[in-house]
Order: sequence, then structure tokens, then C-alpha cells
Amino acid sequence: MTKRAGLDSFFAPKSVAVVGATPNEEKGGYGIIFNMVDSFDGPVYPVNPGRDEILGLKCYPSLRDLKGKVEMAIVFVPAEKVPGVLEDAVEAGVKAAVIESGGFAEVGEEGKRLSDRCKEISVKSGLRIWGPNCTGLVNTDPFIFTPFVPIRRAQERLKPGCLGIIAQSGMLAAGFLIQYVVSGFFKVSKACAIGNKLDVNEVEVLEYMANDPKTCAVVAYLESIVDGHAFLEVARDMAGNKPLAVIKGGRYEESARAALSHTASLAGSDEIIDGALHQAGVIRLEDFHDLMNLGKAFSLHPQPFNLATPEGNNIAIITITGGAGVVTIDMLRSSGLEMAELKEGTIKNLAKVFPVWMPPRNPVDIWPALEQNGIGIFADVIRDVLADDSVDGVILLPFANRAMEFFPFDKVGKEVQKRGKAMVSWMFGDTRYFDHFEECLREFGVPVYSDIRSCVIAIEAYLQFSRAARSRAGEHPSREIKVASIV
Amino acid sequence: MTKRAGLDSFFAPKSVAVVGATPNEEKGGYGIIFNMVDSFDGPVYPVNPGRDEILGLKCYPSLRDLKGKVEMAIVFVPAEKVPGVLEDAVEAGVKAAVIESGGFAEVGEEGKRLSDRCKEISVKSGLRIWGPNCTGLVNTDPFIFTPFVPIRRAQERLKPGCLGIIAQSGMLAAGFLIQYVVSGFFKVSKACAIGNKLDVNEVEVLEYMANDPKTCAVVAYLESIVDGHAFLEVARDMAGNKPLAVIKGGRYEESARAALSHTASLAGSDEIIDGALHQAGVIRLEDFHDLMNLGKAFSLHPQPFNLATPEGNNIAIITITGGAGVVTIDMLRSSGLEMAELKEGTIKNLAKVFPVWMPPRNPVDIWPALEQNGIGIFADVIRDVLADDSVDGVILLPFANRAMEFFPFDKVGKEVQKRGKAMVSWMFGDTRYFDHFEECLREFGVPVYSDIRSCVIAIEAYLQFSRAARSRAGEHPSREIKVASIV
Repeated sequence: MTKRAGLDSFFAPKSVAVVGATPNEEKGGYGIIFNMVDSFDGPVYPVNPGRDEILGLKCYPSLRDLKGKVEMAIVFVPAEKVPGVLEDAVEAGVKAAVIESGGFAEVGEEGKRLSDRCKEISVKSGLRIWGPNCTGLVNTDPFIFTPFVPIRRAQERLKPGCLGIIAQSGMLAAGFLIQYVVSGFFKVSKACAIGNKLDVNEVEVLEYMANDPKTCAVVAYLESIVDGHAFLEVARDMAGNKPLAVIKGGRYEESARAALSHTASLAGSDEIIDGALHQAGVIRLEDFHDLMNLGKAFSLHPQPFNLATPEGNNIAIITITGGAGVVTIDMLRSSGLEMAELKEGTIKNLAKVFPVWMPPRNPVDIWPALEQNGIGIFADVIRDVLADDSVDGVILLPFANRAMEFFPFDKVGKEVQKRGKAMVSWMFGDTRYFDHFEECLREFGVPVYSDIRSCVIAIEAYLQFSRAARSRAGEHPSREIKVASIV
Repeated sequence: MTKRAGLDSFFAPKSVAVVGATPNEEKGGYGIIFNMVDSFDGPVYPVNPGRDEILGLKCYPSLRDLKGKVEMAIVFVPAEKVPGVLEDAVEAGVKAAVIESGGFAEVGEEGKRLSDRCKEISVKSGLRIWGPNCTGLVNTDPFIFTPFVPIRRAQERLKPGCLGIIAQSGMLAAGFLIQYVVSGFFKVSKACAIGNKLDVNEVEVLEYMANDPKTCAVVAYLESIVDGHAFLEVARDMAGNKPLAVIKGGRYEESARAALSHTASLAGSDEIIDGALHQAGVIRLEDFHDLMNLGKAFSLHPQPFNLATPEGNNIAIITITGGAGVVTIDMLRSSGLEMAELKEGTIKNLAKVFPVWMPPRNPVDIWPALEQNGIGIFADVIRDVLADDSVDGVILLPFANRAMEFFPFDKVGKEVQKRGKAMVSWMFGDTRYFDHFEECLREFGVPVYSDIRSCVIAIEAYLQFSRAARSRAGEHPSREIKVASIV
């Protein structure tokens, strides 16, 4: 058995062949070659025995005709032809193959046999295999975009960011890609659909991201975890360095069965899995909506917050409506967070801009101060609250209307960055003003959500991450994690 | 003390005066008179001593000049002038006054005195008062729109629907109005911002909606409940007839203090309040996002579902991705719902369109059947699953892409309506196809959400409502509700 190479040949290949490339725009093999020609900087070789030329490039009958020229092959041919293609790849000196075709272990016995055959080739030759049954991967720097959905000017549209995404299910990965990555909902470093995990699995991809200087945080949807030990070890190594949030389905018998997690996976009851993930510093979520919203939060923060402050869970709320403040307190407290007790100096400062009949306290109901002083007062109030040592994070609850055009974004942003404290914002009201508000605040690392739950999840995760970072920095000894007991 | 009149003079006045009307477009008094002129069908009288004419209407110096002509007055003048205006109103025979001005009990002692003075006038004269410190109310049939935000062609834009909304906080009510009512997120019968509740309170408004044939369900945000006894009695009377969902903040000491709920309100610990609401059949939620999404669900359903089926909590999932199915099972089971065990006949029928290597079961992973038969197969699969007696409700998890244009909406919709079972849908993928999908399904009473949590909340609420309706219909004796023990 040859020593296995790492994943560089997938994430940063010097040259790429597309096996199953076609000029037929209805087919996935078109999308892949289109994306490569349109956005990959190195040499691209279409492979298809029935064509001479595709998209202006010479087309080759087989990988064997490209000996020594191809580092990575993307394969999109019917499943029964894949083992032959892999043998060609080995012959040609290809190092890595992304198999996007379906029809393997997920479709029954015959597929399973094909899958085993591919696995055998990989093990014997050292050829690394990604997939099958997946859309492959996206790397924003250097740029590579393997999915079979044709995306024009992908390299321009997907600006490099620091979030890593891992998704197992092919269809979900495709959905996440379109809905969150291509749309610019957040900026990614790498987005990976790992499919059937015939060779490359979630642990190896996660470890790659853990060591990748361009990735600052990872969100993952996992159906199964092939090696609980290894997964937890990587997660523990990441704690305090790069936050990791996962959805791991299968809490109940019915869902575990549906996820086929009885096959080689993180074993034991869900309580044990839950505890182990928690101990390893992993944030576990339930809904994709929450995972993607938290991904947005972390994509804005390459660094943990304010390691100099004492480690607390004390939140200040600055709200334009008392009612939203009340609801937010309930949700914060349910999550185990605390309401900050503002210091006397802060109260004194705030009182200068508040009407006499309303002594400031937390939650800071900003409306009367706003009526008296105009919308610019947001900057003063946020400055004073962020400067308070008893405040570890701020949730902002403003109201979207025409006045938003005069919101003091720059002043607020400078204060947030100066204090290095977590701030997140809810937004409600006139939806026409949502985008502008969100764009202006995201520049300063403040994520904006239209549900309060996402604000609470994000600020809790920010604080947890900062605590872990302090612990990692040696302020406190790392909590011991008993991996042995849970697998 | 005169006998108090009901709320008809607010919801269906024959004539309206706007005290504080102005042609100055920057002021709220302009918005109110604009809305009245633009969309109210009866006579409208501007009142302002400094103007002769506003928006082409003769302007009157005082309500006293309109003796016998005005049923409802909308008042938007500085707080200190309001008691005088109310005395004028009494003199003029006005029956109801909506006070939108702020500056009363919410701003300290002087405001409190003004508030007491208004209350006194109301009690003595029988003049009903709505507010102060609120945007008033919206009724879609007959049409009246009192908020001070000018909305052009409000009567055309706000098509009558069956949802009733009640919000206490003025700013939240304004936000809900713009974000959810005016935008068409759901269609309402009545939307009410009750403000300081000087006279008309949430119990009276709720009771009015309970008896209103045009209202089929109510969602409410309440900071305080002035009379727990009365509130629970109305809620209990609604159970099984009109669903009621509320956010009642103040679960923790900090939030209760912030909500000032220590004043006359539903007393006792939050656990007791929670239990009482639950026993009375009220759905309690935490986040506005959830409340509005559930409001959307109920706005599509004037009737409870399928009273003929046995009362169960058994859900079938029809999904295009196994992964989303797994996540949905976890969230369903966490909510106490069950996975339906499909009948043999259903499995046999489904097997006809499924590939042999994939025996159908719940969750029904439709992807392979779709690949084999095209997107039209959704209609067959949904038909078979809905027809299964062991299925009480269906959650649909499709993928938004170009193929959505060929989704068999009509066939699916007809099956849903024929079976009278609850169906809700998640949507993910290419956001460009979300609106079309949502519009087509909403016609058949299927709400579409972009988070799975909202699907689970909606289907749980649908089933709970149908169960309550069966109970009300006498199949089972109503569960006893011990009101006395909780207030």
C-alpha cells in the first residue's frame, strides 16, 4: 500500500482533466468543463472519446493520452465506467480524482460492488478519491470550482472569505452552494461536498481546514462520523483557534435509522455524542437555517474577541423597542447567558442623552434618547455600552425605516473594532432598508439577522469561542476531554 | 357610570374625524388624514384650529363644531392637549377615540397625570379610548387604516384575510405592520396596536376577534395581561374554534422587570403562566419570527383539518434529500411529534414508482423516483401518502431550481384539499424560485418556509388545533382548565 498523499491535489491542483466533458449544455459534464474553462487558472483537459474539441479546447479520448500532465481529474461518467477511468488515471500519474457521478453504494448491491472496486484501486495505487455522489469542492484561493452547475464568472463572484463548509449529503451541499455561497450570503475559503466518503472523509477534510491558514471557522452538516476518536481529536485541537459548528442528525431511533448511522460511525447514544461534542468545544445545532446564520457570523470574524476582558457571559441589549428587549432577555437567559449590570459611570454617561423620566439601564431602551437627539445618538450609546467592563457582548435591536440612511455606521463600526467585543444585530420593519443596514454593519464584523434566535446563537458562540481562545492561550488549563469513554 | 359600548365604533365607524390633521407631510398627523382620505369609505373630518382646508377637505377648529357627525376620532396632538380634545369629543357625541400620541404613563409622572385625566373622562362619559401611544388599528372589511404611516392605496393593497394580530408595544406593532401586513406576508382581518391600554385592553380586543366571523385565528404579542382570569376565559372559549398563539415575554426576573409586568398582570411564576396558557389551548412562542410564520400558516386555514381522522401526531416526510429528512425527524421528535408508519398498501403503491434498490418508507426519499419519472411524480407520491390513514400531516422538503417551473402544483393542491390534512413545506436551493413555489402552494393552503423549525411549529399547531376542534365538537369532553388556581 502506497503512502497516501494529502488533499493539496484537490484544493490546489496545477492542472485538471474533466472526464465526461461534453458540449451538451443539458448535461452535468458541460457544467464542469464550463466552470473549469471559465474560472480555473491552470491547464484544463477535456476527456471524452466521442469528441475532438470542447469549448475551444482539444478533447482527449482517455486520461492515458495525458500521461504526466494531469494532477486532478474530475469524473462525471456513468458509475459502471468509473473503475476503468480510475485505472486510466493511475496509469497517467493523476494524483487525485473527484467522482461526481452517483450510482454507487447509495443505490444497492451492484453500486456497492463498483464502489468496492474503486476503493481497491485507490488503496493499491495511492490515487486519492473524493466522493463519489457529490458536487466536489470549491476553493476560493487558489480558485477551483468543481460542481456541475455552470456558474459564469465564478472566480469574480466568489470572493475569498474565511469560512469553511463541509456537507455530506449531495443535494443539501448543492442547495447550500447556490443559496449561501454563490449568492454571497457569506464568503468562504472552502466549500466541500464529501458525498459517499469512499476515501476522503469528513475527518481528513476537517483536519485540512484546521491547518489551512485561509480558513478561520468551519460549519459542517454530517450524517455519519466514520471515526469518532479522530473527529473529536481534530475538533479538540481546533478549540479556541477555529470555531466549529455542526449539525449531526440522528438524535432519535427513526432519524438514526434514516441516516444509516448504524454503519461505522460515532457510536453510543445521542446523549454521549452530544456530551463529547460539547466537551470538544463543538457547537451543535439543529436547523440548517441556524448553521448558515452562525456561519455568516464566523465568516465576519477571523479572530476571537477581546481576550483581555474577564471571561463573562454578560450581554447588554440596546433596543429601539422595549418589547423586543423583553423577548431577547428571555431567549438570552434560556441559553444560559446573563444580562450585564451596567457600571455607574456608564449609567451617568447615558443619562446625559436620556430624558430625566427614563433612567438608563440594561436593556438600554434608546427610543426616547433618539427622539431627543436624532439617530446619531446610536453612536454615543453604543460607545458607552461597549466601553463598560461589565459588558461582554452587545445585541442591537434597531428599526428599519428611512432614518436608517442616517445611521452612524462608521462611528459605530469604529467603536466595535476598538473594543473588540462581539456585537450582533436584529432587524425588523421596512424590508427595503434591510440590505443597506446589513451591508454597512457587516463591514465592521457585525452580523445582522431577521430573527432574534440567530442573534442569541451567534453571540453565545462568539463568547464561547473567545473563552476557548483564552483557555488555549494558557490563562486556564484546557478542560480534559475523555475521548476514550465515548467511542 | 355610563354603560360601556363595544368596539364596533373603532372597527366599523360610519364617520371619522382626525384631530391634529396637517398638510405637513413630515408629520404623523398628515399620514393619518392621508390614509383616511385615501382609503376610508365614509365621511372624514380634519380637525385643526390653524387650517381652513386639508387635502381638499374643509378643516374644523374643534370637534365641538362637528356635533353629532363623528362616530370615531383619531387623535394625534401633544399629550397635554389630549384631555381637552376628549372633552370636546364627549361634547360632540363621539363614541370612540384612538389616541396615537405618546407622552403619557410611559414618560413619567406628568404623563401619568394626563393619562389619569383621560381615564376619568372615559369612565365618566362612556367615551371609549384606544391607546394612547400606539398606531391604532387596521380592519380590512369594512376598511379602516388608522396608523400614521401614509400608505397609498391601502385598501387595494391590504386584501381581506382571516388572521387577527394584536401587538402591545407601539414600535413593534409598527414594524409588524410594515414588514408583514402591508407587504402581504399574510392577509389579515384586523391588526391592532393596543398601546398603553388606558381603556380598551387585550382581553376586550381578543374577545372581539373571537366573536368576529371574519377572523379565523389570532397571533398576539403581549407585554402584560391586565386580567389573567378574563384572558384565559376568552382563550378557553376560542380553543378548537380559532387558534391563538402568543408571545408573552417576561420569563425571567430581568425580563419581567423590563416588561414592568409587576403592575396589574397575569400573576404567579412563569411556570404557572405557561401551564395556564397551555391548558387553555394557547400556543406560546418565543421569537417574533416564529409568531409571524405561524400567523402565515393560520392565515391560510380558515378551518381545522380533517376532523374525521383519528387524532394522531403522525407525520410523513417527503424529501428530495435524505439529509434534510434526518434533520426534520430530529426536530419533529423533539417537539413530541411522531413519524407515521406507512401502511402496506401505501408502500406497495409507492414501490411502483421507486427503483427496486430503494424500498419506500417514511421519510419518503423521493429523489430516485424523481430521477426515474420526472418532477410530476411529486403528485403521485403526495397523493398516496396523504391517502394513508396513518398519516396525520405531511412535511414536504423539495429543492428549488429550474425544474420547479414544472412542479405539479394543481394536482398536489387538489390532493391536499381533498384529504383535508395539514401539509407544510420547506424550501432551499436557488432563491430565485422561492417566490413562485410559495405563491403556488399557498393557494392550496400550504405554507412554505425557509427554516425547518417553522415547518415543525406550524404542523404541530395545525394538529393541536384539529384535536381541539374535535374535542369541541364533542368527540371528547373538554379537558378541565383550572383558572382559579393560577391568578
